[in-house]
Amino acid sequence: MRIGIIGKGNVGTAIAAGLSRAGHEVKFGHRDPKEPVAEAAKWGEVIILAVPHDAAVDTTKAVGSAADGKTVIDVSNALTANMELALGFTTSAAEEIQKMLPKAHVVKAFNTVFAQNQSTGKVGKEQLTLFVVGDDAKAKQAVMRLGKDIGFEPVDGGPLKAARYLEPMGMFMISLGYTLGMGTKIGFKLVKG
Amino acid sequence: MRIGIIGKGNVGTAIAAGLSRAGHEVKFGHRDPKEPVAEAAKWGEVIILAVPHDAAVDTTKAVGSAADGKTVIDVSNALTANMELALGFTTSAAEEIQKMLPKAHVVKAFNTVFAQNQSTGKVGKEQLTLFVVGDDAKAKQAVMRLGKDIGFEPVDGGPLKAARYLEPMGMFMISLGYTLGMGTKIGFKLVKG
Repeated sequence: MRIGIIGKGNVGTAIAAGLSRAGHEVKFGHRDPKEPVAEAAKWGEVIILAVPHDAAVDTTKAVGSAADGKTVIDVSNALTANMELALGFTTSAAEEIQKMLPKAHVVKAFNTVFAQNQSTGKVGKEQLTLFVVGDDAKAKQAVMRLGKDIGFEPVDGGPLKAARYLEPMGMFMISLGYTLGMGTKIGFKLVKG
Repeated sequence: MRIGIIGKGNVGTAIAAGLSRAGHEVKFGHRDPKEPVAEAAKWGEVIILAVPHDAAVDTTKAVGSAADGKTVIDVSNALTANMELALGFTTSAAEEIQKMLPKAHVVKAFNTVFAQNQSTGKVGKEQLTLFVVGDDAKAKQAVMRLGKDIGFEPVDGGPLKAARYLEPMGMFMISLGYTLGMGTKIGFKLVKG
């Protein structure tokens, strides 16, 4: 598939590496005028928003109608300067992005995984779970497939509203890895009997 | 240790089974006047509040000063009748219980684990992670030890405020198991590299 990745930071480049290895085509869009956001968004069959949440408003404006009818993956964790969640409980970053791109099929995924593990879907030899939530079944299936291609075990986590659970999980992962010093070689796995 | 378990539902009895097997002494306190809440709370060196969150106010009143200076484990997920989180983001069930028992050392744990897996800490042969958060280091260590005795791999998840992450995780687990039909033979594991 053709994946337009908006944002070229550690998250965007890690997911791009995993997708490229799996045989997908990737084009970046970011601040550099040589790689315009609008172009990558238009080119991609799937769009990944890999920018900090405080850039979401500007980014979704730049993406605009190029996202109409397409799957848009929100991978963000919306943090304050104090490393706390910026929003939650009655909404989520993913739902806010869906409001800004009403004709896109927004899917939340990858936010519970450190960038260091996003290109393989593994920590050591253990496969991590990719929790995928969204309201459009086909879009969600597409993202689960991309996750599987990278190396994750994808799990359908329900409607986009469930981003209200995934985003605190992402924040908890950040807290474990950075604040509590466990480092980034950790990740969530859903054990199944 | 002597563990006073307040509540004799599927969660309380599951944790009791795990703790008894590990050699700890357990006494229940609940609605039945033959097993008074106050007595179990007074007797226990550690108190486990295993009641639905909407019973938390009455239960903490019945426990009262018997909890002073003791470790109190909150295992609840605060749900509405519509199976959504009743509170979050700016507070958590655990923090509300700490306010009601200001001289106790409240620790949040077990809420991300289905009752069916609480007596063994495992799903099939795989060990689940017990995320433990709280503000008192000794209380947290005691709960981590109890979790290990049952069969979990305990992980220190930070201060009590991190219950704001654990409670959405618990809700997500309920959603995966019941709403999405994965069943209760599932659980979270923190993979470490």
